[in-house]
Amino acid sequence: MIADLLASRIRDVPDYPKPGIVFKDITPLLADPKAFRAMTAEFVRLARDIGATKVVGLEARGFILAAPVAVEAEIGFIPVRKAGKLPGAVYAVSYELEYGEATIEVHQDSFEPGDRVLVVDDVLATGGTAAAAVEAIRACGAEPAAVAVLLELTFLSGRARLAQAAPDVPVNTLLTV
Amino acid sequence: MIADLLASRIRDVPDYPKPGIVFKDITPLLADPKAFRAMTAEFVRLARDIGATKVVGLEARGFILAAPVAVEAEIGFIPVRKAGKLPGAVYAVSYELEYGEATIEVHQDSFEPGDRVLVVDDVLATGGTAAAAVEAIRACGAEPAAVAVLLELTFLSGRARLAQAAPDVPVNTLLTV
Repeated sequence: MIADLLASRIRDVPDYPKPGIVFKDITPLLADPKAFRAMTAEFVRLARDIGATKVVGLEARGFILAAPVAVEAEIGFIPVRKAGKLPGAVYAVSYELEYGEATIEVHQDSFEPGDRVLVVDDVLATGGTAAAAVEAIRACGAEPAAVAVLLELTFLSGRARLAQAAPDVPVNTLLTV
Repeated sequence: MIADLLASRIRDVPDYPKPGIVFKDITPLLADPKAFRAMTAEFVRLARDIGATKVVGLEARGFILAAPVAVEAEIGFIPVRKAGKLPGAVYAVSYELEYGEATIEVHQDSFEPGDRVLVVDDVLATGGTAAAAVEAIRACGAEPAAVAVLLELTFLSGRARLAQAAPDVPVNTLLTV
């Protein structure tokens, strides 16, 4: 039921950002309070099930999904940002893209020893960003307890890439295409 | 009391992003569930007071503050993004920065007639982004009902700039420096 509601609020945008790509636009879901609340409730339930003490949001759309989880589950919110956006001392992880590479950063003092971390993003595509986030969380001395996304694009094999990088971190997806 | 709690969770980072600037880092506040919840409750109360039917978050930190307001107040969340990030038809507004200019965009179909919109961001600095967001919301046929920020940097006169651009839109700040 919830999956049907969420799926009905995701809009296909053909040829974005380039010809041949069908972009999954989640803005109709965010604009529907019933759908946004239902999605948040799923992530909060997962956070409680795994005993998460922090939730990480991946810039930028992951911020939108992760922040309400922090507030509802009463756990700290930690941003993982693109390079150069965080003002304090950071731990940085670079990873390969189809063309070139990208870097994500997290403040080194984001976690306390024993923190169990839920990583939230909107879409699991190739898994590069999520795998880099998991690595950064470990480097900070915390435990990545799970990765959760609204939508998994199975044809991009992100789950396999994550399993290779972090075989003990479960991946939870609310919807798959 | 709430102001003291929030203020105690904002960290000064000297010489960031450049020498002579003291950056206000809100990540300690986001990592503290009690503070994050208290801030959200203030924004939710405002949203209800003004009869807001939508909340706009300004990319990227504004996303983190606005999204929980949408979930808690049960109103739609609308992202205002930097140029080129939204896949649908957008309304774009450019504005001047100290050096050069910036552009924000919002999906043209974000609002319904009669929508009353609360704009949320972390910091009110020069007011350029908030004024552009107000203009974009009006262009979409909705009513910007208020701007709310965690922290107002009064020495940058953003309030005056906003008052000039939108004299009838009140500005609410939880903290000032």
